[in-house]
Amino acid sequence: MEKLKPRTLSGFMELLPAPQMQMERMMEILRETYALYGFTPLDTPAIEAAEILLAKGGGETEKQIYRFQKGDSDLALRFDLTVPLAKYVALHSGELSFPFRRYQIGKVYRGERAQRGRFREFYQADIDIIGDGKLDILNEAEIPSIIYTIFRRFGLKRFVIRVNNRKLLNGFYAMLNLAEKSAEIMRTVDKLDKIGTEKVRSILLEDNGLSAEQADEILKFISIKGTNAEVLSALQSWRGKNEIFDLGLEELTAVTQYLGAFGVPEENFSVDLTIARGLDYYTGTVYETTLLDHPEIGSVCSGGRYDSLAEYYTDRQLPGVGISIGLTRLFYVLGEQKMLNPELPAAPADCLLLPMTDDFSAAVRLATQFRNVGIRTQIYSEQKKFKAKMSYADKLGIPYVVFLGEDELAQGVCSVKNLRTGEQVSLRPEDAAQIIRSGVLSLQSGCVILEK
Amino acid sequence: MEKLKPRTLSGFMELLPAPQMQMERMMEILRETYALYGFTPLDTPAIEAAEILLAKGGGETEKQIYRFQKGDSDLALRFDLTVPLAKYVALHSGELSFPFRRYQIGKVYRGERAQRGRFREFYQADIDIIGDGKLDILNEAEIPSIIYTIFRRFGLKRFVIRVNNRKLLNGFYAMLNLAEKSAEIMRTVDKLDKIGTEKVRSILLEDNGLSAEQADEILKFISIKGTNAEVLSALQSWRGKNEIFDLGLEELTAVTQYLGAFGVPEENFSVDLTIARGLDYYTGTVYETTLLDHPEIGSVCSGGRYDSLAEYYTDRQLPGVGISIGLTRLFYVLGEQKMLNPELPAAPADCLLLPMTDDFSAAVRLATQFRNVGIRTQIYSEQKKFKAKMSYADKLGIPYVVFLGEDELAQGVCSVKNLRTGEQVSLRPEDAAQIIRSGVLSLQSGCVILEK
Repeated sequence: MEKLKPRTLSGFMELLPAPQMQMERMMEILRETYALYGFTPLDTPAIEAAEILLAKGGGETEKQIYRFQKGDSDLALRFDLTVPLAKYVALHSGELSFPFRRYQIGKVYRGERAQRGRFREFYQADIDIIGDGKLDILNEAEIPSIIYTIFRRFGLKRFVIRVNNRKLLNGFYAMLNLAEKSAEIMRTVDKLDKIGTEKVRSILLEDNGLSAEQADEILKFISIKGTNAEVLSALQSWRGKNEIFDLGLEELTAVTQYLGAFGVPEENFSVDLTIARGLDYYTGTVYETTLLDHPEIGSVCSGGRYDSLAEYYTDRQLPGVGISIGLTRLFYVLGEQKMLNPELPAAPADCLLLPMTDDFSAAVRLATQFRNVGIRTQIYSEQKKFKAKMSYADKLGIPYVVFLGEDELAQGVCSVKNLRTGEQVSLRPEDAAQIIRSGVLSLQSGCVILEK
Repeated sequence: MEKLKPRTLSGFMELLPAPQMQMERMMEILRETYALYGFTPLDTPAIEAAEILLAKGGGETEKQIYRFQKGDSDLALRFDLTVPLAKYVALHSGELSFPFRRYQIGKVYRGERAQRGRFREFYQADIDIIGDGKLDILNEAEIPSIIYTIFRRFGLKRFVIRVNNRKLLNGFYAMLNLAEKSAEIMRTVDKLDKIGTEKVRSILLEDNGLSAEQADEILKFISIKGTNAEVLSALQSWRGKNEIFDLGLEELTAVTQYLGAFGVPEENFSVDLTIARGLDYYTGTVYETTLLDHPEIGSVCSGGRYDSLAEYYTDRQLPGVGISIGLTRLFYVLGEQKMLNPELPAAPADCLLLPMTDDFSAAVRLATQFRNVGIRTQIYSEQKKFKAKMSYADKLGIPYVVFLGEDELAQGVCSVKNLRTGEQVSLRPEDAAQIIRSGVLSLQSGCVILEK
């Protein structure tokens, strides 16, 4: 038979078992932590009616979307988790209680041009809090505090969650009589990290049509640096001139204060007047998250406050705040940077059980005994040379091998070999189980990410 | 703005938060149990090149598949997890260690005609063990023993894993000089449950062209009933006439014996000579699983032994054994039958914290203290009437509400109300945490499935 060359599409992540274990570990931390903050898990279809996904329409989305016909239906794959959330909340609003807090970890699809580190299928890990008509400012502080907790549980320390407020920016531009240009100015300022002050200034003047005075006032504003208290204090000098600005400053101050109460140290969050997020629908607090040692990869976790989640589907006013971790990309970057902790067990089993008798029944019973106390156990029943069996355990990184032969059976023991130390002992099954369990626990004590 | 009516496509499951929590619980049991038996998690793309998915080609698959173009690429959504596994193993065989044991829980897509209880997007939860050239018979007993463990952890007791062996059947048909017709005979016999003995006999005679003698011998064979020992013993009378039959009988005997060693009680597995599985590629042990009180829904978990996983992509001989749980369908049926345990907490939080002060900082710190000991905590910060707040907790089924007002703060306590009993007490935070934790633990003690 002629063979077809097996291949995986480019732009699609498919991991080998060991890195997949690391990915699962990160997902487990995400699920656990999101749940700890009172978020309910949600799962929506990957396929939706194209008109639902494209309700907002426009631009890049329409070009990148995977869209196709099936029978008479015009279908598409979701390109984010926000639009499906909007549909879900609008569709089920009568059956949900607000504030509605949900997390969703799922694959989304964008047919971008394939390039290194860009994926066409990737996981997003989102949380959102949706209010009914109103939503308290506390939520805008809680969202980044959850990200802080997750990143610390991942093992990251050198990251900063950068926080700003769109009302503050809109109010500020209104003071300069630039209210109508605020969106394009934000897009220009958003490039500051990439292109520098001088280039931003020239775009503000030439492309955005600002006066030199206006441009300089903006550059002065976004050059405010210092501790969070210093930045907030410097902002006081514009206070009282514009209501929206004042409201934004009040919100930013409250978010900063509550982030402290949530236990987020100042080194991990900073008020940063340069960030704005491109998307139009943010209306209050906005977030970006930077890895300090890898600013070149951009924000690994972004989001913000919006006034209207589902305006395309319902008249109901549903303000919310949310944030999204680009999990696949983050994982890819961590792998590239060799930041995934190689010491953590990536083996499919804690213990490889080698029966040395023809009848495997005793081995089966021992395996059951181990599994009942939580030891991930594989019985190796293939007829191979001893060396091949040991090499199998070794290659997979299985930490313990247990032998069960006639001698052991006669004495009611099993032989446990620790492959990391080479030590081998004969023990009663319950003692063997205890040794293996505590050994495995200590191997798992590290974090999934190692910073250098 | 004109609104678009929000909708979810028919044939796509989208759950409300409470049932979603039950689904997550089942997935967690699947992940934990599969891991306990030494299976490694795998995740492959939902989209593959169409030629890869359709390598085998033919029939229903080609009609049901979601296939589409993107740029120059001919793409399709996976319709099962077996073909992507075959591709994965063929592609990465040099980097894998065999036996390769993987589990995968993922969505697959089939554009079937929409009907009640049939889904176009559904989860499969698969395990497979792939050998390199050979694979020991023990694996064919371990696979159903894992299903037994999972179903018991789900809370099911009244189910039977039915086991047969294709070699036994092929050998038997060969004895009757029907080797060439074995595939079509198996398909006929497979209908026994649905159409009855008489109808099977007439199809065997009229459509399959068997003699009355051959048909009667087959009906005699498949009418063998009794305990597993009795069935195996009755099969001895055909022994010695055909090598393949003898090998099949040997395998079936070994699988039965080992299933006992794995601790699977005889009431939960039975040697059943009537099952064969439709698919051609099974070559040894085959499985089906029936819920005793709901035989009408057919097999909820099926699989078997195959000789050649990836023959379309590689010359390498990769025999394996696997089984698949149709999770979405099973979940749907359990819901329809009201078998999902309503006593298990489905709330997004264990504790709703109500700050009764203007400044929420103390509440934030208390929430952090609770979360640090694993209590899923939501701070309710919206400005609503007290009654609305309590009703929110009530509707979501949150078991504990904690009040934190000036009085409590002054005394260093918080007030904990158990919404199930109505009891309210003032406690120091660490005592409150302990009460809530043990209360929540006892609420979680039941199984996800309740049999009546």
